[in-house]
Amino acid sequence: MPVKCDNRGNGILESVKKHIYIYSPSSAVRDKASFKRGIKRLEALDYEVEVDEAALAAHQRFAGDDETRLAAIHRAAASGADVALTTRGGYGLTRLLPGINYKAIAKAISKGTQFVGLSDFTAFQMALLAKTGALTWAGPALGEDFGAEAGADDIMQACFDDLVTGQGEGSGWQLPRHAPDSIANGAETNGGRKHGEYTIKDAMLWGGNLAMLTSLVGTPYLPAVKGGILFIEDVGEHPYRVERMLAQLLQAGILAQQKAIIFGQFSNYQLVPHDKGYKLASVVAWLQSQVKARVLTGLPFGHVATKVLLPVGQHVTLAVEGRDAFLLWGHQH
Amino acid sequence: MPVKCDNRGNGILESVKKHIYIYSPSSAVRDKASFKRGIKRLEALDYEVEVDEAALAAHQRFAGDDETRLAAIHRAAASGADVALTTRGGYGLTRLLPGINYKAIAKAISKGTQFVGLSDFTAFQMALLAKTGALTWAGPALGEDFGAEAGADDIMQACFDDLVTGQGEGSGWQLPRHAPDSIANGAETNGGRKHGEYTIKDAMLWGGNLAMLTSLVGTPYLPAVKGGILFIEDVGEHPYRVERMLAQLLQAGILAQQKAIIFGQFSNYQLVPHDKGYKLASVVAWLQSQVKARVLTGLPFGHVATKVLLPVGQHVTLAVEGRDAFLLWGHQH
Repeated sequence: MPVKCDNRGNGILESVKKHIYIYSPSSAVRDKASFKRGIKRLEALDYEVEVDEAALAAHQRFAGDDETRLAAIHRAAASGADVALTTRGGYGLTRLLPGINYKAIAKAISKGTQFVGLSDFTAFQMALLAKTGALTWAGPALGEDFGAEAGADDIMQACFDDLVTGQGEGSGWQLPRHAPDSIANGAETNGGRKHGEYTIKDAMLWGGNLAMLTSLVGTPYLPAVKGGILFIEDVGEHPYRVERMLAQLLQAGILAQQKAIIFGQFSNYQLVPHDKGYKLASVVAWLQSQVKARVLTGLPFGHVATKVLLPVGQHVTLAVEGRDAFLLWGHQH
Repeated sequence: MPVKCDNRGNGILESVKKHIYIYSPSSAVRDKASFKRGIKRLEALDYEVEVDEAALAAHQRFAGDDETRLAAIHRAAASGADVALTTRGGYGLTRLLPGINYKAIAKAISKGTQFVGLSDFTAFQMALLAKTGALTWAGPALGEDFGAEAGADDIMQACFDDLVTGQGEGSGWQLPRHAPDSIANGAETNGGRKHGEYTIKDAMLWGGNLAMLTSLVGTPYLPAVKGGILFIEDVGEHPYRVERMLAQLLQAGILAQQKAIIFGQFSNYQLVPHDKGYKLASVVAWLQSQVKARVLTGLPFGHVATKVLLPVGQHVTLAVEGRDAFLLWGHQH
């Protein structure tokens, strides 16, 4: 497999059960079967699972009205759990950003609660990072990942175990055979440079869902990260929309301040006849022509089953050796 | 009809033919039939139509590569035409923003060339307004409007005539029977206020496509308009995405600086069972709860046949008398 998470499974051998708190800050849970499967799966992994009282609340498309979801977030922070895990993404955190008690979240994190999620959750992660600098994890959600009908993905699960046990030291993946702009230029180069070997040390890893990131530009909820490593993913966004979002980050001066930009998985979009050869690789090539930063692709993170967990707001090392890429952050605990 | 444009048709009585320059700054023209019908329609209205040499160029999904489209924009500015009209929107101007000679466009406008368009064209209009303060027009495109298979819309055409002849003094429309938040609250009020009668004088009118507006937040291409009247429209965007975009404008502090926010037409989106009663009216009501500005709806502008022309960057008067709303700007020439 192109991905590795170290020390898989060590967590379940520990004597005290790890405590997972499940809550719903975004869209209403409609798929109750996945929700239940997810909880059973976590319990089978010998985690103690606590479900927030409003985890299945519903108001319009939201998991309860704004007040309900804010209260759920703050209960997750007060839970003392090892991990606060969202049921799902969707939409809803944007509206809550002005009402979140970021200091309380940061305090919970400093006491050992790890906040994990993706997609809509990116808004929470960015706002928290901007307001407090606290570290969260880009990673799975309960329903779609642990509750997947086909079973939880092994790599996702191993990476999650690593997080819970504090054993994780990084993640590796294999870069696509053709470097980003080689697709356009026909050469095995990366912005005029060979993939070759390079290391970027002590750079802040940040990012997540691209649509959520761009929706925060110009607001107080996007952290000003300099010299960082930005990772991005999205679902159901046509490449021209991905390009438009990247253009916003570019024209806002954000990309010029990054040392590397890593494409995760962009899934579930439809190319159309009008594209006439324009595709995601065209966007990657265009981006590489616009920035000095290293542009990498293939990171196993996004709206796909096989995803690693990534520490958002952590200083990491990016190491590339030929087609092997590694994000390394050492022990967290 | 709820819309009025004054002095319709006076333009075609003038002795010297007005000169329309057609060019393609955004997506490639695929619908050649609409393109041809549009030109014939303008010629039948006794306009002199000049077609840019690259109007039908194509590169991937774009109307030619970036250099080709930039050159087309600058030829439109140098054309000396009365109106520079885009063939269509789509996507493509975002990439060009750093390369446009805004001073040359502003100079052309000062000499009498009116730039007209919508959708992707909003990026051009905003950037030009931000860089030079020059006035452009939110209005039709060649293909979808003048080239519509069902024939050009009468009101659109009357408003266009008004622009070309310099006779336009404003546009009026009828507000929906239920004011925005009455839909949610069951009362015929508007943010706690009756529609009643009010006038907002000497406020800058600006706006256009909401997705394009939000894609410029944080970049040098969004004008900083204070005390303005912001109008918005979009196509194919679910209400939750409309809300997320408005939340960005809100959280970036832009909406707090406006005196009024006017919803044009939001078309061609699909509600889903998951919405459970969440709809565009929910977004309007939410917005009204977040801002002090007047929030109006029903403006006949957007991705619909019946559209008025609106002077972007012009100081206007908004007058509301019961259900009648008027945007007034006096003579332009």
